[in-house]
Amino acid sequence: MKIIFDKSDLMNSINIVLKAVPSKTTMSILECIHIDAYGDEVKLTANDMELGIETKVKAEIIEKGSIAIDAKFFSEIIRKLPDSEVIIETDSSLQMSITCEHSHFKISGKPGEDFSGLPDVSKDKFIYLSQYGLREVIRQTIFSIAPPDSSNKVMTGILFEIKDGNLKVCSLDGHRVSLRKLVLKESFDYLKVIVPGKTLNEISKILNGNVEDEVRIFFTENHILFEFDDTVVVSRLIEGSYFDVERMLSNDYETKIKVNKKDFADCIDRATLLVKESDRKPIVFSITDGSIELKIVSAIGSMDENIEAEKEGKDLMIGFNPKFLLDTLKVIDDEFISIYFLNSKAPMYMKNDEDTYNYLILPVAM
Amino acid sequence: MKIIFDKSDLMNSINIVLKAVPSKTTMSILECIHIDAYGDEVKLTANDMELGIETKVKAEIIEKGSIAIDAKFFSEIIRKLPDSEVIIETDSSLQMSITCEHSHFKISGKPGEDFSGLPDVSKDKFIYLSQYGLREVIRQTIFSIAPPDSSNKVMTGILFEIKDGNLKVCSLDGHRVSLRKLVLKESFDYLKVIVPGKTLNEISKILNGNVEDEVRIFFTENHILFEFDDTVVVSRLIEGSYFDVERMLSNDYETKIKVNKKDFADCIDRATLLVKESDRKPIVFSITDGSIELKIVSAIGSMDENIEAEKEGKDLMIGFNPKFLLDTLKVIDDEFISIYFLNSKAPMYMKNDEDTYNYLILPVAM
Repeated sequence: MKIIFDKSDLMNSINIVLKAVPSKTTMSILECIHIDAYGDEVKLTANDMELGIETKVKAEIIEKGSIAIDAKFFSEIIRKLPDSEVIIETDSSLQMSITCEHSHFKISGKPGEDFSGLPDVSKDKFIYLSQYGLREVIRQTIFSIAPPDSSNKVMTGILFEIKDGNLKVCSLDGHRVSLRKLVLKESFDYLKVIVPGKTLNEISKILNGNVEDEVRIFFTENHILFEFDDTVVVSRLIEGSYFDVERMLSNDYETKIKVNKKDFADCIDRATLLVKESDRKPIVFSITDGSIELKIVSAIGSMDENIEAEKEGKDLMIGFNPKFLLDTLKVIDDEFISIYFLNSKAPMYMKNDEDTYNYLILPVAM
Repeated sequence: MKIIFDKSDLMNSINIVLKAVPSKTTMSILECIHIDAYGDEVKLTANDMELGIETKVKAEIIEKGSIAIDAKFFSEIIRKLPDSEVIIETDSSLQMSITCEHSHFKISGKPGEDFSGLPDVSKDKFIYLSQYGLREVIRQTIFSIAPPDSSNKVMTGILFEIKDGNLKVCSLDGHRVSLRKLVLKESFDYLKVIVPGKTLNEISKILNGNVEDEVRIFFTENHILFEFDDTVVVSRLIEGSYFDVERMLSNDYETKIKVNKKDFADCIDRATLLVKESDRKPIVFSITDGSIELKIVSAIGSMDENIEAEKEGKDLMIGFNPKFLLDTLKVIDDEFISIYFLNSKAPMYMKNDEDTYNYLILPVAM
């Protein structure tokens, strides 16, 4: 095999597939990037058996072939080469030589055939949306999934539900629910799958995020496939049935407030200084006409602050884990937000009139 | 005590003294910042008993007093306050209240009298130089001191020697010697002290680095005091006698090369990819007329590269730890550097004709 790349093209493509190289594995072939130059174009692939990424890279193929090469060393060598033409050549003993200007590297590879490529995914059921849209709904829900080692696997993923021309994206971790809705350009068949959080996290790093650029998403029983730019990402789905989220949401409220998001978030952020992760002190809101008093008392000290708020309905005193509030406020882009409360024991909802987001957070005892 | 600060003035001053707050200590008073508003101005002080920093901060003193306050919480609270007026008030029970706009914090302090201030340092012997000059000589020598836990305390510090109107700054760690000379504006008395690396590291973060702004440095038998802007830094000196560095340096050479610094550093940087910290593989230079071939062979693979060089004298093959070369090349600002060799077992020297720097690195067996 002999291929000529432009260094920056090659580096960009390596950075994309690196997202599917496992950091720890006992199978050394999984730590490799597969370079396939058998066809008319060069494809790089990485696959940790849960998540696989394949991307095409512009290159001149002088001699066809394939090889699997240690992802870490290969990527680091390419990264440090000058911005110039990179020539990659392999011999029959699987030695790869990398030449760029006056620099020559030699490292050992593995047979390309030992590498297991992406699974075949049928392309019957699909939707498409903008790269921007997909990246936003991931960002605005992924913070409230359960940690990867959670015993409840379903909660480590994010629900994707297609219904009546809408994409509903939902995550929850037992303390809060994050729900985002996106209107699709077409009406697609009903679908409901749970996508691993890790997959979506890696994808959102690869998406260019443009409003004009599309992602096509294909669904099968066990897999989800994302196709965008020159890249294909395939991931296993999480088995199991998701929670009935609609049943957790309620439109009843006794108190509604409207606050400036930044002021509210800054104030809660200051309050967290007085809370150690371990001692779970709540921040307490006293909601009265025209303002909210936020108060926290901990072993370190106390803090109280008043912020302006438009209020409808009853006065209320209610306590929350400040971290949960901040996580949510960070992903809402509106200048003002509306928050709905029923009583001090019931969840609060941050939602907008357009119904494109709805964030539920459970209160904690004061 | 009651003082009104501007938030950003206060924050800047806190950031300066924070450098002397120990990260781990069994004496909780050392974790405090001392606020002294007994005089006409407000002074902040921190002191870990090795290194002490005091700085003045612009403020309006409404009621005189002093207090010692936990540095971590105090600094984090101030940092998160809005950019506005900050009012700090203490009561007889050592409660400190911090008010800024609608935000009120309360945390507990300790009696100001419990805090031990900076030691008295006599101001007989001194030198002065620009903040820029001091920061540069620190940056260009501090990388080759021995680690703080080294059994040889002298090597954990940096030699400051004043002689014939020159400041000589020197560090060494058993593998290399870094020497910088700076011409002072005046001739000062002969002096030779060893300053802890940690002190110089912290100081170089506080110096504004301007060429026009001065630092005055005072010396006593056990202490060094730096005075600049509104800040005073006092540090203990390291006891012991320093190595006779002049004896290690030599002007003899059999081979001299002149190379482009960036090309040389980039090439060595690429070679380090093939070396794990643990296996200490040398990078080997083969110096011939007009070029150097750099070569490294390790368990991971091999790399060779030719770079252009002007050569005088004999051909030579010699090996070095690439990390030591890179550390030194990073701090030299010249576009081209001259390197002097005697033979493959003798140290190499990177030095300039003006004799303002001289870096010795020992070779390693190939």
